[in-house]
Amino acid sequence: MNGQMMSAPLLISSLITHAARHSGDVPIVSRRIEGDIHRTTYSQLHDRARQMAHALGGLGVQAGQRVATLAWNGYRHLELYFAVSGSGAVLHTLNPRLHPDQLLYILDHAEDQVLFFDLTFLPLVEAVAGRCKTVRHFVAMIDKDKMPASKLPNLLCYEDLIAAQKPDFVWPTFDENTASSLCYTSGTTGNPKGVLYSHRSTMLHTYASVMPDAIGISSRDCVLPVVPMFHVNAWGLPYSCAMVGAKLVLPGPALDGKSLHELIATEQVSFAAGVPTIWLGMLQYVEQNSLSLAPLQRTIIGGSAVPPSMMRSFEDGYGIEVIHAWGMTEMSPLGTVCRLRQKHLADPLDVQHARLEKQGKAVFGVDMRIVDPQGADVAWDGKSQGDLLVRGPWVVQSYFGPDGAQPLVSDETGAQWFPTGDVATIDADGYMQITDRSKDVIKSGGEWIGSIDLENVAMAHPAVAMAAAIAIPHPKWDERPLLVVVRKPGTEVTREELIEHYKGKVASWWVPDDVVFVDAIPIGATGKMLKNKLREQFKDHRLPGV
Amino acid sequence: MNGQMMSAPLLISSLITHAARHSGDVPIVSRRIEGDIHRTTYSQLHDRARQMAHALGGLGVQAGQRVATLAWNGYRHLELYFAVSGSGAVLHTLNPRLHPDQLLYILDHAEDQVLFFDLTFLPLVEAVAGRCKTVRHFVAMIDKDKMPASKLPNLLCYEDLIAAQKPDFVWPTFDENTASSLCYTSGTTGNPKGVLYSHRSTMLHTYASVMPDAIGISSRDCVLPVVPMFHVNAWGLPYSCAMVGAKLVLPGPALDGKSLHELIATEQVSFAAGVPTIWLGMLQYVEQNSLSLAPLQRTIIGGSAVPPSMMRSFEDGYGIEVIHAWGMTEMSPLGTVCRLRQKHLADPLDVQHARLEKQGKAVFGVDMRIVDPQGADVAWDGKSQGDLLVRGPWVVQSYFGPDGAQPLVSDETGAQWFPTGDVATIDADGYMQITDRSKDVIKSGGEWIGSIDLENVAMAHPAVAMAAAIAIPHPKWDERPLLVVVRKPGTEVTREELIEHYKGKVASWWVPDDVVFVDAIPIGATGKMLKNKLREQFKDHRLPGV
Ligand SMILES: Nc1ncnc2c1ncn2[C@@H]1O[C@H](COP(=O)(O)O)[C@@H](O)[C@H]1O
Repeated sequence: MNGQMMSAPLLISSLITHAARHSGDVPIVSRRIEGDIHRTTYSQLHDRARQMAHALGGLGVQAGQRVATLAWNGYRHLELYFAVSGSGAVLHTLNPRLHPDQLLYILDHAEDQVLFFDLTFLPLVEAVAGRCKTVRHFVAMIDKDKMPASKLPNLLCYEDLIAAQKPDFVWPTFDENTASSLCYTSGTTGNPKGVLYSHRSTMLHTYASVMPDAIGISSRDCVLPVVPMFHVNAWGLPYSCAMVGAKLVLPGPALDGKSLHELIATEQVSFAAGVPTIWLGMLQYVEQNSLSLAPLQRTIIGGSAVPPSMMRSFEDGYGIEVIHAWGMTEMSPLGTVCRLRQKHLADPLDVQHARLEKQGKAVFGVDMRIVDPQGADVAWDGKSQGDLLVRGPWVVQSYFGPDGAQPLVSDETGAQWFPTGDVATIDADGYMQITDRSKDVIKSGGEWIGSIDLENVAMAHPAVAMAAAIAIPHPKWDERPLLVVVRKPGTEVTREELIEHYKGKVASWWVPDDVVFVDAIPIGATGKMLKNKLREQFKDHRLPGV
Repeated sequence: MNGQMMSAPLLISSLITHAARHSGDVPIVSRRIEGDIHRTTYSQLHDRARQMAHALGGLGVQAGQRVATLAWNGYRHLELYFAVSGSGAVLHTLNPRLHPDQLLYILDHAEDQVLFFDLTFLPLVEAVAGRCKTVRHFVAMIDKDKMPASKLPNLLCYEDLIAAQKPDFVWPTFDENTASSLCYTSGTTGNPKGVLYSHRSTMLHTYASVMPDAIGISSRDCVLPVVPMFHVNAWGLPYSCAMVGAKLVLPGPALDGKSLHELIATEQVSFAAGVPTIWLGMLQYVEQNSLSLAPLQRTIIGGSAVPPSMMRSFEDGYGIEVIHAWGMTEMSPLGTVCRLRQKHLADPLDVQHARLEKQGKAVFGVDMRIVDPQGADVAWDGKSQGDLLVRGPWVVQSYFGPDGAQPLVSDETGAQWFPTGDVATIDADGYMQITDRSKDVIKSGGEWIGSIDLENVAMAHPAVAMAAAIAIPHPKWDERPLLVVVRKPGTEVTREELIEHYKGKVASWWVPDDVVFVDAIPIGATGKMLKNKLREQFKDHRLPGV
């Protein structure tokens, strides 16, 4: 017997209609590639999104077809979020940091019909335009008077498209399982794989992410998503901010410390979201110039493990709460967020800090397991490590396309789980901590060494700007850790001093066998260190005593 | 084209499994009718809910069948919330404050199979047991050694049922549109009507209600639902507390000021929820005994309009934030919650207060309209009144049963809306304010007089404990307001003083024509004043000058 409540599908268009109706005058502030600061509101953005939805129809985009973007965080990109998905097409956000060949592969694989791009990426678009098979229109997201001279075929101006339409588009109603958006993983091996989100998965993720124990934003917040809208929908913030009617500040291409600091100060940003590497830059800038970060109250950091030293800088130096989160493209992306429970508030401060360094608890809707190589559950004791499996309504079922792999594994009850590729512990209170990517694991004498732990210890040294611990083959122990370090400008530290620095902080057999200094560690398209590149680079490194 | 995310139905059982896994040791504290304070945890409650799910099967309860409760807020009632709905049956909460004849009508109409009850209601159950047609088992929710001598047929002991089972019940997976629970409206006219919630409507309501702009609770809260679990699922708190892993304090039958204050103080309650009449009692008790309410930080109040004077007592007297909310049985119940937006924080305090007295903004998922008698939209200007219509995934579609009325009205686009029976204004920022129940409206010379406004002014007088403004027929103006007042014990106030008290606070033609003093105003089964009773009582009242 069914309940007798209204059947109302969960649709992304409801986010912008709700925001326009209930928070119509709330500002959306963007730093544009035109160079200026642009201001609009949810109500105006709703109008323009509806104009753009008309324009998409005019370009022949049909329900289910993919519309690609190559764009920074800005109001036009946000308009496309609602115009494309809201009208029943699929928003395909491309990562501009990918190699042109990978981009071409993705464009063809997704069969994108239209490509919207910021001018920054004109050279990239020109490099692939002649070769991609399905794109029929290229649209420059720029004011009319700044349209570039380009030989791109069918090059259109975003503002022309908008100007030609009325804001009277009526958002269609359809099945909530309809595809809404597409994002490819930045697979370090093999071809990138597409994750095809649905309206339902996106809306449930949005509801869940807004909870006080998750991202926890409200209509009293001013939110700065530094995390890019081209990667996993900027952790869903374009959606969740519309849901609660929060002011949005979109940083455009300027992700340097100075530009971010300026936005935080002038726009009174209360909540920011980004990956650790971005915040490293901003903290350095703010420190060097003895600036304040006054309006900022909370920042959510994920994408890679947050070094504890960064947490302390934010909290002790600036009184900013750091919220550690974990997720992945295949999870829309939110999996866990680290928040203290009531009973933890009575713990000594250092115990609280240690807990907050974990990746945190499953957001309601996500189920987690850690398993051994045989697939048996590993104890939730905060010590035993296992492969992390997840499931839930915003977790991938299969990858996009006819060749789309089905990544799930079944448990003994037949339930299906997504193997994250992360290795983790979970404690009795349900707090998960990533110890490694399974492919980055260092296995010494049959036992795991946590590379993230080793990196966090290194990062706590005042002279270390960035550090990666990688496995080097070893005749006796199979593998031993090598620490690869980037020094902070103007500082000195030796191999011996760093090895000494580990004493008492980790088990003695965890201490790296060697340290090498480099100018830079390669960073991938989504801000993560490319350890496979490092392993390649140091594959012939000779450890001392070998 | 559909998205390729996991299909995972939204089921109520996931709330208790999640809570048990992630917040297993969080306390659930109940004041029992046995008289003592009982302590359990989410993990233990999950075990007992699974034992009870087995027991329900043993009693022959099948999927979709209704299981009734007549019970206070307590852990056994909470176990039934999960055991009944989680196993695929329908939890039917009965309001013990109803007249036995109404109760009998509801039991028969719902075709309840089993009736669980707290001993308080034994006389009531005995009064209806012989006459109700479908109930096969009566279960007393009491320790074995306290089982009453009763002639009830098939009387079982709750603890016997539990003790006979193992906690290895596996929650079934089924369509999320399956019915989960049933609650009848306390219709003041006609037969009560059943609202049949689904797992989907309940889970979406739970996600939405947890948002910082709605109820906003977290794993750092200790929640006291004074609002009864027998009426609209205690505003969903049994679900939302499990979702976030909040400590729960369940007050049982003791809703007097002393008992509530004791729980707040000893259990460190941070968040409480109740109707205004309950808080009137507690505030009086706390004031008279010069007590503190220290641990309490926020209280959400709804069910009837919160008198501004009560807001001021809580906030100025005790530093407790009052959150005004509006909803109805037909809405699961949450419709609006009043929270300031960022821009309002700059308003002068009295402007903020005036805003917080409104019923608030639509919780994301709920759409609102106000319409004139022809069904045309009324302006959102904060002044124009209209009939309030709502829609959304947790709003009723049709009432339960073969005779279930379809209450919805269609707009010009064909979209369906539920007419709330409330009259309201909405301002440009989307803040809704109830001015009246449509049937309580006072219409003088063709113009509406807001009875809630008149009552709020009266309640602000130090000698007024409770006040109702009702329409009295008038030869010239059609209707004029009569104020019915209950004085606070030990105070004096005259008709003339109260009329004088209105000067300058409302338009002069709104001032009540007359005041009568009574010992008590009749209160209905859900804590609302029964104005229809008052109108009946005073229908021959002669206004001065008539
Ligand atoms: N905050 C509130 N202010 C005024 N009336 C309210 C409020 N909350 C609930 N109500 C009234 O209670 C009705 C729902 O009653 P019930 O279905 O019994 O919960 C609504 O239609 C309103 O008339």
